[in-house]
Amino acid sequence: MNRQELIRQIKEKRSFLCVGLDTDINKIPQCIIDEAKAQDGDDYIFRALCEFNALIIDATAPYCVAYKPNLAFYEAYGVDGILAFEATIDYLKEEYPNHFIIADAKRGDIGNTSKMYAKTFFEEYDVDALTVAPYMGEDSVTPFLGYDDKWVILLALTSNKGSHDFQLTEDAQGERLFEKVLKQSQQWGNADRSTFGRSASAENMMYVVGATQGRMFEDIRKVVPDHFLLVPGVGAQGGSLQEVCQYGMNSDCGLLVNSSRGIIYASSADDFAEVAAQKAQELQQQMDEELKKAGL
Amino acid sequence: MNRQELIRQIKEKRSFLCVGLDTDINKIPQCIIDEAKAQDGDDYIFRALCEFNALIIDATAPYCVAYKPNLAFYEAYGVDGILAFEATIDYLKEEYPNHFIIADAKRGDIGNTSKMYAKTFFEEYDVDALTVAPYMGEDSVTPFLGYDDKWVILLALTSNKGSHDFQLTEDAQGERLFEKVLKQSQQWGNADRSTFGRSASAENMMYVVGATQGRMFEDIRKVVPDHFLLVPGVGAQGGSLQEVCQYGMNSDCGLLVNSSRGIIYASSADDFAEVAAQKAQELQQQMDEELKKAGL
Repeated sequence: MNRQELIRQIKEKRSFLCVGLDTDINKIPQCIIDEAKAQDGDDYIFRALCEFNALIIDATAPYCVAYKPNLAFYEAYGVDGILAFEATIDYLKEEYPNHFIIADAKRGDIGNTSKMYAKTFFEEYDVDALTVAPYMGEDSVTPFLGYDDKWVILLALTSNKGSHDFQLTEDAQGERLFEKVLKQSQQWGNADRSTFGRSASAENMMYVVGATQGRMFEDIRKVVPDHFLLVPGVGAQGGSLQEVCQYGMNSDCGLLVNSSRGIIYASSADDFAEVAAQKAQELQQQMDEELKKAGL
Repeated sequence: MNRQELIRQIKEKRSFLCVGLDTDINKIPQCIIDEAKAQDGDDYIFRALCEFNALIIDATAPYCVAYKPNLAFYEAYGVDGILAFEATIDYLKEEYPNHFIIADAKRGDIGNTSKMYAKTFFEEYDVDALTVAPYMGEDSVTPFLGYDDKWVILLALTSNKGSHDFQLTEDAQGERLFEKVLKQSQQWGNADRSTFGRSASAENMMYVVGATQGRMFEDIRKVVPDHFLLVPGVGAQGGSLQEVCQYGMNSDCGLLVNSSRGIIYASSADDFAEVAAQKAQELQQQMDEELKKAGL
């Protein structure tokens, strides 16, 4: 999906919500587990993961523009988990082709190895975007940038406590590491792309900025005024949607705000899908307000 | 495997070689592909990857102390690749239980997600060590440190060109990012461990330092005199074993030097396993010399 289409989806759905599919077998409602066991016995994990995801997706699709399965949760179940990840992507592509799909995998390696990861996620799984870690620099990221309408979402200023350990380190000129990442990465792999009057990299690069970072969004917008930001940390991690929008929204919206646990595990009873829909809708309504405030 | 045992293996085998199993179906000798196709038809990939790995392992095991499959190369083939990774680990554990197994996956995420990765690699696959990216800081790494005799191998100063983009950035006090990573990470997750007279983290933490970094090993040894370093970049990437040893070896050896392409793809003809053995033996003999020079 390209930038124009993503913006169109946001404006149509009055939402910039991304639902995180961090599907943990120990947190899936018992009713799903029981049904999967009734059908597949001890081999119930694949079915349980797929069923839960499909029901969460059906319930939340009207209120969100993106889904973000985190690979850690699927890899934990070996082949069954990988098959469930694949089946979830297939389900999304078939039933909800207008939703943006982010594989949250935080990959990154030397060039020839990143190329293998790029093939996996952009050719085999054919997702729209992949989260990538910046520590290894340019040649670890550029292999992901050679695909039309595919996005790199680079870690910049993350939502966790450990974000303070290195990301805020100032160099001799007072520039912090996350700012250096934002600045330098805009120059990567985009020499042959037209710009549409913006930094060319705004067409295929986003940045992860945690909702817990509050007013830091002001500083971030100084460096990347046009780029989309993927914002985790609203909900379970304590970030504020209003603050994110106040300091982080741009004239194209420029935000994808993620909620995982706050939606998918809002209820562990039989009504889990309804409650997930309700939580997603609450966020969507707040987002509609924020879009209106910004004249969007 | 714990530190004492690893050192014992190095001294016994007169080698600190790690063989990188970056197994790419497009580089596997045709004879392996043909045989796998003869047996499994179009579903030949799993067998081809497993067969190649087993033959490379059998040929090189006398000359190395460790194996390092890089997950990117297995994930690229979806479920077949993951099954081949698992089968390779099982083969190693069964046939060569004294070899140290490193999953090169460069993972790292917020705490509850890193915990899932830790379960996957240390409980399910039960490898000895996992490479981890430091960008997200302490709480992204500590979940990997709670396992006895399991190791985190943290990226510090990598072998690629992009290592210059951020890892060498100096802060206001002149400390470079990789030095900050080396210093701070020693304090993580090891409060309750005894020290054996060393930094406690030397018992369960190693660092990735590229062979291409030459004399930088001197600076690194100032910060982590005792830790093991995993050193990629000898061979195809141009690093020098002698230089690495001159500046990087410590009184316990403290080095695992990796070679991937220089060994496993040294020949693409039917003699690939013999040639791999020969290349591994050449490195082992050079390592024996270096160990002697250091009085080990």
